[in-house]
Amino acid sequence: MKINGFAAFRAGADLEPFSFDRRALRSNDVEMEILYCGVCHSDLHQARNDWSDWSPTVYPVVPGHEIVGRVTAVGESVTRHRVGDAVAVGCMVDSCMVCDQCRKGEEIFCRSGMTATYNGSDRVTGDNTYGGYSKQLVVREEFVLSVPDGLDLSRAAPLLCAGITTYSPLRTWNVGPGSRVGVVGLGGLGHMAVKLAVAMGAVVTVISRDEKKRADALALGADELLVSSDEAAMKIKASAFDLIIDTVPVKHDVMPYMSLLDINGTLVMVGQIGALESVASTPLVFGRRRIAGSPIGGIAQTQEMLNFCARKNILPDCELIPMQQINHAFERMERSDVRYRFVIDMASLPANN
Amino acid sequence: MKINGFAAFRAGADLEPFSFDRRALRSNDVEMEILYCGVCHSDLHQARNDWSDWSPTVYPVVPGHEIVGRVTAVGESVTRHRVGDAVAVGCMVDSCMVCDQCRKGEEIFCRSGMTATYNGSDRVTGDNTYGGYSKQLVVREEFVLSVPDGLDLSRAAPLLCAGITTYSPLRTWNVGPGSRVGVVGLGGLGHMAVKLAVAMGAVVTVISRDEKKRADALALGADELLVSSDEAAMKIKASAFDLIIDTVPVKHDVMPYMSLLDINGTLVMVGQIGALESVASTPLVFGRRRIAGSPIGGIAQTQEMLNFCARKNILPDCELIPMQQINHAFERMERSDVRYRFVIDMASLPANN
Repeated sequence: MKINGFAAFRAGADLEPFSFDRRALRSNDVEMEILYCGVCHSDLHQARNDWSDWSPTVYPVVPGHEIVGRVTAVGESVTRHRVGDAVAVGCMVDSCMVCDQCRKGEEIFCRSGMTATYNGSDRVTGDNTYGGYSKQLVVREEFVLSVPDGLDLSRAAPLLCAGITTYSPLRTWNVGPGSRVGVVGLGGLGHMAVKLAVAMGAVVTVISRDEKKRADALALGADELLVSSDEAAMKIKASAFDLIIDTVPVKHDVMPYMSLLDINGTLVMVGQIGALESVASTPLVFGRRRIAGSPIGGIAQTQEMLNFCARKNILPDCELIPMQQINHAFERMERSDVRYRFVIDMASLPANN
Repeated sequence: MKINGFAAFRAGADLEPFSFDRRALRSNDVEMEILYCGVCHSDLHQARNDWSDWSPTVYPVVPGHEIVGRVTAVGESVTRHRVGDAVAVGCMVDSCMVCDQCRKGEEIFCRSGMTATYNGSDRVTGDNTYGGYSKQLVVREEFVLSVPDGLDLSRAAPLLCAGITTYSPLRTWNVGPGSRVGVVGLGGLGHMAVKLAVAMGAVVTVISRDEKKRADALALGADELLVSSDEAAMKIKASAFDLIIDTVPVKHDVMPYMSLLDINGTLVMVGQIGALESVASTPLVFGRRRIAGSPIGGIAQTQEMLNFCARKNILPDCELIPMQQINHAFERMERSDVRYRFVIDMASLPANN
């Protein structure tokens, strides 16, 4: 059976229809029909081979790692999922499962490298992995998450990357009631950071270049908007944050945010990957401050996040699009013209044949 | 009574003899005769006004914040120290004592600013503070440390800055038996970091540009020397450290050290203050790694460090010099020609008159 999907065939090309094979079900595999797939900034970067130095793109590339659907078949030894279950898959589809990191649930840091959902290399066959911009997926059961009852499937997909990428640092840095959290950038990741931090009981401030996002920030649950170009306001907020989550996906100056951190505070980068603008050690040394980075979380933490979101009724704000509009969506995403995440409705793709 | 000391009278000038007044004893003050004073890189920077942007030098400046001596008089309400006690003073001589940071023993982060031992401003009179390159010091009792029995006074002075600056991050990042600690730079701070980390039970590696320091590193107790210019050796040590203490006092590239850090590892800068060479977020994001800074520690932690050093018999390697050789010592320090800390023997200065 050929699986219908969308792929980019070379850097700079639009995504277009692509039919391909999925592997036959292994004994520990789950086969799922994909109902929704979120559109992550990484999809665009990978499709364009923007990360050629550390993650060169193998074409054709079928992006998509925010995947929600239903189980359609399971291998003979599968115990975690049953046909008909609502399930989800994020950025990883496999890892060694035996190294120290995998054993403690940090599969993302697998010593031999986790297998990415797309543009990865299958651990058994070595084949290029194809992601969620398609009708069907086959994944080993340990990397398939359960979507708890009550989570709207049409909006849950972005939790698998934007959700866990912001949830994970909030947990790593022990955010809870009373924590003072700043969020820089109010896009797909930023708006999830706000919702999640608010739900954890933190006092949350969105830090933005201008006033325009005030209404949105407050509507998302933030306590405040801090305008970073307002020097007086920035001064008042000196040493006012325990944790700042920086979700800006492009190169930018992080130094203005450092003095907002209190003693022992951390600025954690989750959006931009690559060279930073100039960094000085001065605010680090004199406040024991830290600059950190954080990727997604492990499988157990991703499940914890999904359960948390179901319990707290936290869902991303999504704009549902048909698969055929993906190239236009990429364009809009590039100019931050989305509130806050595109989600592809896979009903728009014809059935596999 | 005029106190004899040495001061710089302008940026770029040699230090020269300077007689000045110390304040009359307040009820909570301790007066001490200074026996030894360590020579810190900061002394040189401050004397030359190298930090004019964030700590402009007020001339004349009497440097010195690694001070050991004996109590010669105490104010009427002093309870912590008695005449004849061996005592020490580090980088701070006062703070507000009521803010949240002071209350938890982090006087270094006093919300209204701690008072530096030299080039600071007395909280009562506003007078410029004069440091340890002198025969006598008057300090409020809470900022006077007790030197435990058994610590060689002639070598204890550098513990007050080089010691606590390396002890504090080792404690902040929970170094203990089995911790894998790297130390970059083997000068005054670096050699203390090695001794302290070894005494805490860590596995310690000195990271150096070349082979020259191997014998010294091992003699100080390090388990290994890693030559940072040896690409193969650096690759073998990828992800091999929990904590790297970077003591290099000049601008340098920290990126080669980032990949040496394991998941969740931290590179902590204690030597250089100012702009870093280019930093990329890539190793941070993909390893949840951190770049941090750390200054000295609070008073309670400084006392803890002195007690630890006495118990473990840890002392810096010192070269004792007379006060009159300070300018030559500065020159030698600048070209790293000291193993590992100059200590001024204040017996070389004439008595006060």
